[in-house]
Amino acid sequence: MQQDKPILEVCYSPALLHLYDLKNTIVVVIDIFRATTTICVALANGAHKIHPFLEVEECLSFKAAHPQVISAGERDGKIIEGMDRGNSPSDYSPSFILDQEIALTTTNGTKVLHMSSDAEQIIIGSFVNLSTVVNYLKSQNKKVLLACAAWKDKVNMEDTLFAGAVVHALQDDFEILCDSAKMSQSLWASTHDGEKLYEVLKDSSHYRRLSHFGAEKDLIICSSINTHPCLPIFMDSSYLSNHHPKNSI
Amino acid sequence: MQQDKPILEVCYSPALLHLYDLKNTIVVVIDIFRATTTICVALANGAHKIHPFLEVEECLSFKAAHPQVISAGERDGKIIEGMDRGNSPSDYSPSFILDQEIALTTTNGTKVLHMSSDAEQIIIGSFVNLSTVVNYLKSQNKKVLLACAAWKDKVNMEDTLFAGAVVHALQDDFEILCDSAKMSQSLWASTHDGEKLYEVLKDSSHYRRLSHFGAEKDLIICSSINTHPCLPIFMDSSYLSNHHPKNSI
Repeated sequence: MQQDKPILEVCYSPALLHLYDLKNTIVVVIDIFRATTTICVALANGAHKIHPFLEVEECLSFKAAHPQVISAGERDGKIIEGMDRGNSPSDYSPSFILDQEIALTTTNGTKVLHMSSDAEQIIIGSFVNLSTVVNYLKSQNKKVLLACAAWKDKVNMEDTLFAGAVVHALQDDFEILCDSAKMSQSLWASTHDGEKLYEVLKDSSHYRRLSHFGAEKDLIICSSINTHPCLPIFMDSSYLSNHHPKNSI
Repeated sequence: MQQDKPILEVCYSPALLHLYDLKNTIVVVIDIFRATTTICVALANGAHKIHPFLEVEECLSFKAAHPQVISAGERDGKIIEGMDRGNSPSDYSPSFILDQEIALTTTNGTKVLHMSSDAEQIIIGSFVNLSTVVNYLKSQNKKVLLACAAWKDKVNMEDTLFAGAVVHALQDDFEILCDSAKMSQSLWASTHDGEKLYEVLKDSSHYRRLSHFGAEKDLIICSSINTHPCLPIFMDSSYLSNHHPKNSI
């Protein structure tokens, strides 16, 4: 007897998240420019855990209580005063980040995280860990929601493109009836299965916003596929990777 | 001196409409399955005006006060008890509708209408009047928002596709920086400039919903391009077409 395939849906913005039932669902948080890319890079490069915060003040308070933690965040393209690092994935090389903890403030991605408390599990997706996410979702046989962090609730190209790449890879394993999923898959097809990803992303509104702050090198990292395989899972208020020796997930 | 081009943006759902500034903006309400298609067909076929209502009760009250008006609406694919007609565009042939007024209850499209009171003007778009809408927007030199009615706030394929067709036709005349606009244009390209529109729409979630009610003939009308040229404009609580002899717009 053929078993029913689990359902895969895509949500384009936190402002639409209330329309989806998250119970018994794995939520994949997507914030390509740059939070989820940076989280994947840092964890793949050996960071122990990442504590996400919506507000700058919360992040700074956590750092004050835990001085060994690296505080990180940007506003308007600059490192926030009093913090150690910015949001660029290039800030988190293996030599710098091995076994460290990061207190990271991001707005859009953390908003989705906070809104997803009903989910069975929350993981992190970006192009740098695409195949790891895809293989994990295939292995779980559970309902999935790909949750785009968007930009201040406005639908964006980069998060939708990543959702499309996942839908494309999972189309035979999941039941995909959701129009947003089909539309994102069609958008992904316009990159010629990722070949033109860099060019398409360069035309996104967020890249134009970032480009005033010399974000060319970030775009190269954020549009690289499978360069930092790891599976960041949200547990006990922080993101952990399953491959770090200190974690048993 | 080259004049700045006006801005064109796309909003995928009423739940995102608050993110857009509607002042000095022409809003195009899009509800392809089937409200805006039906409105265009009825007005192009000679209806005098259409009074839109969100609630069934409002619509029935209006009919009670104006017995000569044709009341129209469906719920769950059936004509609402006590109403004269349904939501199908095929219900409004020229011989039936010439010079008549319709009191029409629709949910998604009327929601967008009510939320757009800040707009400078509200017009109606559907594939059957695509070129009329495009030519009108070109002639106005004003900021434009293409507002998809969606389905209970969930992003849908058919409204996004129509937005994409308009973006494609206006790409040289407007400044298009909005990611939703670019994404809808990419989706439109997947129909091979409309050639495969019928096939793509047949795969939409709303068509699957309607198909239980024999909606094949509606799909054929809703995916027909430029068959019913007219420009429905919202004025004084109803939709009027500029070409009806009783209207001077």
